[in-house]
Amino acid sequence: MVPTVEWKDGAVRLLDQSRLPMHVEFIDCRDYRAVAQAIRDLKVRGAPAIGVTAAMGVALGAQAVTSTQYRDFATQVGEICDHVATSRPTAVNLFWAIGRMKQKLVALSAKSVAEIKAELITESQTILEEDIALCKAMGQHGAALIQSGQTVLTHCNAGALATAGYGTALGVIRAAWEQGKRIQVIADETRPVLQGARLTAWELMQDRIPVTLITDNMAGALMRQGKIHLCVVGADRIAANGDVANKIGTYSVAVLARAHNIPFYVAAPYSTIDLKTQSGADIPIEERNPLEVTAIHGSHPVAPPGVAVFNPAFDVTPAELITGIITERGVFKPGELAAHFRS
Amino acid sequence: MVPTVEWKDGAVRLLDQSRLPMHVEFIDCRDYRAVAQAIRDLKVRGAPAIGVTAAMGVALGAQAVTSTQYRDFATQVGEICDHVATSRPTAVNLFWAIGRMKQKLVALSAKSVAEIKAELITESQTILEEDIALCKAMGQHGAALIQSGQTVLTHCNAGALATAGYGTALGVIRAAWEQGKRIQVIADETRPVLQGARLTAWELMQDRIPVTLITDNMAGALMRQGKIHLCVVGADRIAANGDVANKIGTYSVAVLARAHNIPFYVAAPYSTIDLKTQSGADIPIEERNPLEVTAIHGSHPVAPPGVAVFNPAFDVTPAELITGIITERGVFKPGELAAHFRS
Repeated sequence: MVPTVEWKDGAVRLLDQSRLPMHVEFIDCRDYRAVAQAIRDLKVRGAPAIGVTAAMGVALGAQAVTSTQYRDFATQVGEICDHVATSRPTAVNLFWAIGRMKQKLVALSAKSVAEIKAELITESQTILEEDIALCKAMGQHGAALIQSGQTVLTHCNAGALATAGYGTALGVIRAAWEQGKRIQVIADETRPVLQGARLTAWELMQDRIPVTLITDNMAGALMRQGKIHLCVVGADRIAANGDVANKIGTYSVAVLARAHNIPFYVAAPYSTIDLKTQSGADIPIEERNPLEVTAIHGSHPVAPPGVAVFNPAFDVTPAELITGIITERGVFKPGELAAHFRS
Repeated sequence: MVPTVEWKDGAVRLLDQSRLPMHVEFIDCRDYRAVAQAIRDLKVRGAPAIGVTAAMGVALGAQAVTSTQYRDFATQVGEICDHVATSRPTAVNLFWAIGRMKQKLVALSAKSVAEIKAELITESQTILEEDIALCKAMGQHGAALIQSGQTVLTHCNAGALATAGYGTALGVIRAAWEQGKRIQVIADETRPVLQGARLTAWELMQDRIPVTLITDNMAGALMRQGKIHLCVVGADRIAANGDVANKIGTYSVAVLARAHNIPFYVAAPYSTIDLKTQSGADIPIEERNPLEVTAIHGSHPVAPPGVAVFNPAFDVTPAELITGIITERGVFKPGELAAHFRS
């Protein structure tokens, strides 16, 4: 797989996911504002990938600060953090990663600004490397839940493209496949932005993992026919009570899975767990541009001009519909999470 | 509303629904094969509209038969019927309408071929006029189920465009609106062919009935938020036990409605009720071209080349998930249908 995000020649290089799968193109961001805009425009998306990218954006912004006085430097980096934090509201990994960069800034206050600049790059690299390691650990825990011969439904893209690499939900699938289990994947296309069709199908085809694409509204019929044995999805934010915010449509999949007695799993690293948010009702849900619904790729209209549109980017799946949450520390019941991740 | 289908200057004139809403264009079919192809290509779609169009196609084909001997004429018209019947497999109205034209052909055997040709045109016109009357009767029965202030979800297009006029599910909504009830409609866009976005939204906007477009995967989240009070959809075939085949995704809507205690209604005329089919398991489900899923309008790719695809055009909603079936004779429980429509 090509890297989702990397630090390259003093810039943040992003794979432009809005152009996949037809075009494999990269964007070199040389300014933190460009990084924030790329997150806003879904050029990079997926909660863990957003976190890594935001950290790199902060490191990038820090390099351009000219002051050599710590207090002045720290104030300006704080403003950079605040700007990057405005890019999207729902995925908590964004705020987690920025928070971690801020902590580093404070911890390094005794060092020279030049040293801190270098250390902030290193910290963003560490976050990236940890992300891959977390995904691989999740993959090992989650793969044990999948039997050879089973078909797994996934929604949106919680793959290598949604992370620094390997993936959360697709990391679980990838690990099962690497263990030699003969599995099949059904990918919801995931309207409106079609991350399932454009990203999940592409990513799995690159790895030669068998994948069949469906429109979102086919999942129920396939479940009724016994063609789906397990669901696994990612998460943008998990509240203390185990409620999960994830891509719009996740809730419908969870209700359908319950109606057909199909296990429904969520895979996410600790950085997605937000114990300060009590329940799903407290998670801000981003409402995006209606054009995502009324025009494919923003340019190919599919609805009458001027039609009213709802376009929430996420929904909340209540804890009671979730069989288990797959983390790097193991698989937990949603209600058990808080006890295991309160540190 | 512009007419979906009409007999015009010796041709069958169809509104090309595959071009809506961006282009309002008509196709004049001067050969029955062109009528069958237009049905196959979804230029006309919707179970009742397919029935009316098929009847007109048979009448059109009959005009071109040169034989003046009844037996020879009838054989050739029979072949025309057989050809038109191959156009699509699921909507039973197609076979019902062709069967009615065949019955007429037999009933008129004592008349001259010239007279029969004229009578077949008349019969297809009668089917068209009856269809509108049936929709209006359904509208009256169904409107009583909707309270002012409610929001109604519909899937696909069961509107004027799916019939000779007025609509089945949208006929119910239209009748409630005409009675002065202040209702709102939420339209599922209905992937892959987007009949909800392209047709239902367009049709309701023309009538100034408030409509909000959503992607199919948003319905569950809106139900959980209490934003949907009632669901009403059309049908392509209703089996003797009350199971309903309708556009793919209907089953998911029904499961979600049940999980949220929201009434789920089906609106359909008697020609959609197929008492010879025992249950939904016996209804043939059309599998369509994968290109409908992988490319918008067949030309704008949204998935990796060569990806495997499922593309069933319909699914089956079991009778137990259906609150009531709205017909021209009244509203019935699915299990009551057979007794009321066995004639």
